[in-house]
Amino acid sequence: MTASDLEQTRREQELTERVVASFAECPDPRLRLIMQSLTRHLHAFLRDVRLTEEEWQTAIDFVTAVGHITDDRRQEFILLSDVLGASMQTVTVNNEACGDATEATVFGPFFVEDAPEVAIGEDISGGAAGEPCWVEGTVADTDGNPVPGARIEVWEADEDGFYDVQYDDKRVAARAHLFTNAQGRYAFWGLRPTPYPIPHDGPVGRMLDKVGRSPMRASHLHFMVSAEGYRKLVTHIFVRGDELLDSDTVFGVRPSLVKDFATQAPNAPTPDGRDVSNGAWSRVRFDIRLAPQRTEFEIADQ
Amino acid sequence: MTASDLEQTRREQELTERVVASFAECPDPRLRLIMQSLTRHLHAFLRDVRLTEEEWQTAIDFVTAVGHITDDRRQEFILLSDVLGASMQTVTVNNEACGDATEATVFGPFFVEDAPEVAIGEDISGGAAGEPCWVEGTVADTDGNPVPGARIEVWEADEDGFYDVQYDDKRVAARAHLFTNAQGRYAFWGLRPTPYPIPHDGPVGRMLDKVGRSPMRASHLHFMVSAEGYRKLVTHIFVRGDELLDSDTVFGVRPSLVKDFATQAPNAPTPDGRDVSNGAWSRVRFDIRLAPQRTEFEIADQ
Ligand SMILES: [Fe+2]
Ligand SMILES: [Fe+2]
Repeated sequence: MTASDLEQTRREQELTERVVASFAECPDPRLRLIMQSLTRHLHAFLRDVRLTEEEWQTAIDFVTAVGHITDDRRQEFILLSDVLGASMQTVTVNNEACGDATEATVFGPFFVEDAPEVAIGEDISGGAAGEPCWVEGTVADTDGNPVPGARIEVWEADEDGFYDVQYDDKRVAARAHLFTNAQGRYAFWGLRPTPYPIPHDGPVGRMLDKVGRSPMRASHLHFMVSAEGYRKLVTHIFVRGDELLDSDTVFGVRPSLVKDFATQAPNAPTPDGRDVSNGAWSRVRFDIRLAPQRTEFEIADQ
Repeated sequence: MTASDLEQTRREQELTERVVASFAECPDPRLRLIMQSLTRHLHAFLRDVRLTEEEWQTAIDFVTAVGHITDDRRQEFILLSDVLGASMQTVTVNNEACGDATEATVFGPFFVEDAPEVAIGEDISGGAAGEPCWVEGTVADTDGNPVPGARIEVWEADEDGFYDVQYDDKRVAARAHLFTNAQGRYAFWGLRPTPYPIPHDGPVGRMLDKVGRSPMRASHLHFMVSAEGYRKLVTHIFVRGDELLDSDTVFGVRPSLVKDFATQAPNAPTPDGRDVSNGAWSRVRFDIRLAPQRTEFEIADQ
């Protein structure tokens, strides 16, 4: 290493330390820690790749375009976080492994408050097109004890890959909530999930194209499960055999969340005797384990 | 470490690797390297600070606000890069130490092409208010050989801290270009530099306020020096004794760029006999060393 090389390294390190030190007087210790860590990782990135000034300008132009397409209806920064796995890593960090508790995954943009309630065994599709799918399972704690009265929110896209809120007609379809019974059981008729792309007509879509990635999400059915004393679970289940499982563009797939959506023989009898119009239906079982609510102490201590 | 802790670490690492792998098919190897390094550093940041979902939402809201204030005239993302030291680190990485070549610093947003030419010894102020300052020096290579005909662009704020382009009247003031003579010498009358804040009425300014940082830049005079066969130098000089030297909000200060702006005795004779109206003036010497132009081979090899 030449003297100039050593001097170069010294300059780069000294600069990073100077920026870190600039946050030393931040009155909020949590914010201080975040900004100092952000500084170190950001500078390490710039140094590792030896980012050129032209590449820096390209990055500035990119985030500017992300900012300009973002409005009340379209959140391109969340898409960007999603496709970099940052959303999923945040979910992972905040839903720590706890015995065999069901894994969490990304929330996504399509949840709606106040979806209609259905009774166990009823249909959530609300007229949405798709192959009927019988979904059933139990909610239990990590010791296997059933959790009665757990609130389950479910939502999914129709067979064209659209959620109800993506249509202009204010329909409410393929979303509902229900509660587990005294044995912790639940069941409902939904739709066999189908794949759909994230919005890809903006800068994030162009970036995916440039790096050779698909904008498609693997087929999934969203769940949000809450019960007093338990950590709220936001997750999906995925379809075993879906060719998109390994390339889900937001990295939401966990192997433990891939389920057998079993296609039934034509005109096979349905669990509740329902007459499925064209005879095609499938069924899936999803047993859920809820982690205990973290105490204030554990949250502060982590 | 419990089994759940080990499983948690495994999940976080596995997720990062999955995102890194998603860029494996990127046809542009440089873009692939950048995206994979960005992924690793971004995920390491999220994991190190254990970013909460609420903090993630705050970050999304912040960059959204940065995007919305950015337009053709205001570039809040560059400000953000500046106050995180990312702009300065990029400059540092791209202007590697080379013997005693003069150090580079940030370009800033106030350079304008086609500033007027002045002869050696002339005044660049164009009527801008401020204390006259005689600026002189030489341009040489790293062996000390003078560089004749080097083009020197200089620009600075007036005594109110504003550049000409920040006024609405299309004035051209306190900016010019000149060339070194056969001995590599240059000299001009400018203004003693004064401090000014970066625009701080937007989200970046609010962030600085929250972390207890000032939006002020240390007083400085911009230089851009180019000559055939040499690396283009973009730099400033700073005023020794300026109390802002240690807190320059964009981290542009390098100790080697801090110069003695010597205040002269009232009515001391000026170098060229100029009659300074109220008798107050100062002078500074800035000798510049230019690094050799990097060859294509060296650039490709780095
Ligand atoms: Fe979804
Ligand atoms: Fe400046």
